[in-house]
Amino acid sequence: MNHPHTGLALRSTVKTGGTLELSLVNVPVPETKPDEVIVRMEASPINPSDQGLLFAGADMSTATASGTPERPVVTARLSPAALRAMAGRLDQPMPVGNEGAGVVVRAGSSPAAQALMGKTVAILGGAMYQQYRCIKAVQCLVLPPGTTPAEGASCFVNPLTALGMVATMRAEGHRALVHTAAASNLGQMLVKICLADKVDLVNIVRRPEQVALLKKIGAAHVCDSSSPGFVEELTDALAATGATVAFDAIGGGPLAGQILAAMEAAATRTAKEYSRYGSTVHKQVYIYGGLDRGPTVLNRTFGMAWGVGGWLLTAFLQKIGFEAAQTLRERVAAEIKTTFASTYTKEVSLAEALRLDEIAIYSRQATGAKYLINPNRGLGPGPR
Amino acid sequence: MNHPHTGLALRSTVKTGGTLELSLVNVPVPETKPDEVIVRMEASPINPSDQGLLFAGADMSTATASGTPERPVVTARLSPAALRAMAGRLDQPMPVGNEGAGVVVRAGSSPAAQALMGKTVAILGGAMYQQYRCIKAVQCLVLPPGTTPAEGASCFVNPLTALGMVATMRAEGHRALVHTAAASNLGQMLVKICLADKVDLVNIVRRPEQVALLKKIGAAHVCDSSSPGFVEELTDALAATGATVAFDAIGGGPLAGQILAAMEAAATRTAKEYSRYGSTVHKQVYIYGGLDRGPTVLNRTFGMAWGVGGWLLTAFLQKIGFEAAQTLRERVAAEIKTTFASTYTKEVSLAEALRLDEIAIYSRQATGAKYLINPNRGLGPGPR
Repeated sequence: MNHPHTGLALRSTVKTGGTLELSLVNVPVPETKPDEVIVRMEASPINPSDQGLLFAGADMSTATASGTPERPVVTARLSPAALRAMAGRLDQPMPVGNEGAGVVVRAGSSPAAQALMGKTVAILGGAMYQQYRCIKAVQCLVLPPGTTPAEGASCFVNPLTALGMVATMRAEGHRALVHTAAASNLGQMLVKICLADKVDLVNIVRRPEQVALLKKIGAAHVCDSSSPGFVEELTDALAATGATVAFDAIGGGPLAGQILAAMEAAATRTAKEYSRYGSTVHKQVYIYGGLDRGPTVLNRTFGMAWGVGGWLLTAFLQKIGFEAAQTLRERVAAEIKTTFASTYTKEVSLAEALRLDEIAIYSRQATGAKYLINPNRGLGPGPR
Repeated sequence: MNHPHTGLALRSTVKTGGTLELSLVNVPVPETKPDEVIVRMEASPINPSDQGLLFAGADMSTATASGTPERPVVTARLSPAALRAMAGRLDQPMPVGNEGAGVVVRAGSSPAAQALMGKTVAILGGAMYQQYRCIKAVQCLVLPPGTTPAEGASCFVNPLTALGMVATMRAEGHRALVHTAAASNLGQMLVKICLADKVDLVNIVRRPEQVALLKKIGAAHVCDSSSPGFVEELTDALAATGATVAFDAIGGGPLAGQILAAMEAAATRTAKEYSRYGSTVHKQVYIYGGLDRGPTVLNRTFGMAWGVGGWLLTAFLQKIGFEAAQTLRERVAAEIKTTFASTYTKEVSLAEALRLDEIAIYSRQATGAKYLINPNRGLGPGPR
């Protein structure tokens, strides 16, 4: 039995003077309440959604390293605008890491908690970039036997977001959907979900080689935004599928507006009469990510029946309620090695995650540059 | 009794070669079906929503005049992009004019139509820039005795849009609203409606003198976007009112995003805990006009609970249904000389509306440069 008293944890702090500080601290492992367990974290992905909290909008090209290899400290500058946006978290050391997986090494007295002892579980809820995470038993998703923490590290953010897109499409009366940055781990999951559920999906990627990647796993419609014929190819795919809702991971630039315009062009291809207000077909783009943090630029050439808005997983899960969300979670656990399989470029320790050369790679958020943190890597089973 | 056989009508034609042609044609006055009437049009406003159809996105600085003073012809060039957007109306002479008022001079045999003979009525439905308009009796809004066609010319577009904003605010669970270009005829109506209905309204105007204009009619919150303290003043007004929905007539530029950011700042003023996804308060901007046809530029600094979308009167009226819309129309007729009173800079004939010097003025769509067309001005009671 492991009885760790303390463990390493990553902290991100924005200081009043306008600097970001990333560091590792030793924190006590709390005593478990009856309904809680302690998970020894062995795998936690660095998602784009984690990097917002981690880097706080700092200019990472200004990053400098200090401290020791075991206890590195990274410092970087925030622009005045970025600093203003962080007013709510000034001088508070923030724990980071939305999700992860590990092994239950201590359990509270309740039967539900006790039943988890020794099990490999996936968990969601922040503060995952640490050796030991205390969490309620009910929040643990038990992974199928034979599943490693690395395989189960990304059970929530990407899988539930992909499932949430299809559910949102249905709930709002659309019959097919569009996805951007579609070669990502999330995008590949969405391709598999849509194939299994017989939903038409239009994938938008940014490089020619990503077309082949998605075609290989069965995607029917893949449009490359770097192609000179992009707008026409997209319009053709939208006309073929009838997709009138898009989920956009990029956010900045003209893409959201281009998608709306192509949807409108597809809708009016069959129109009999001109209307200067455009078609009556409602066209929607949900921005769920910010790979491009620049402004969203909408050239409004798509009539009046349109919407652009934010889409957030936690808001979606709250809207559908616990029962419906649990059904989604169980599907993820059952299909974690197939539909919801993730791939990572590299596994790093907490200290390695704060090396400047590693940050330079994973902060690009490029397809094929995804990191997995193992908070117990190289640290043994922890103090006893 | 008038029995006009033909009447003048304005036409807007986009020609394949990329030119816009505005002209007057003589068209037959149709025989009335039993449920129809003929209205001798005496007043029809040139609304921003009419100018989109009228000018078709042509560059009116290139306009040239030909024809005669009685039958003027105006020609202007469209950019290739504007021409592409007009593909649906190429070489079709389009009638123009959304709404207007006049006197019923001929009626079909049905009792409903006969009851309208000689009455001054307001009508909506396009093709109002002509001497005689055939329309169903049920579509006529009878104006209260003593109301002139000029007073009743704008019974629909502005009044129903203003009422629709308040209704949309309520239906979507907001408790106060924001309006831009708020010194317009529509904006002044909205101020009066909100005072009568006890709804908090934040007015955004573009010039200091417009602040005084709106304060004079009772507006409590007026923010001038040309003021150096605009963002702070707006945030204060949003915090005071709790407004989380805005109706924007401008469309292009940064304003929609500034409003969302100020709403978010107001929402997080009282927040206890930092969330990197922003507040959970849904913030919405509806773009209902396009005074600035440039791109909408959204600097996404307002969390994830936000939406921007098109808002169109006809879609709103369809959604609420005929009965509810009729209630709104009757309120407009009853308050046409008070709440819904409009003011015009000038009354012009159809031919005068096509003079280049007049176009140069009303096409600016500036507050205080609104024109009224009287299609029968200077033409007598029409051929018998």
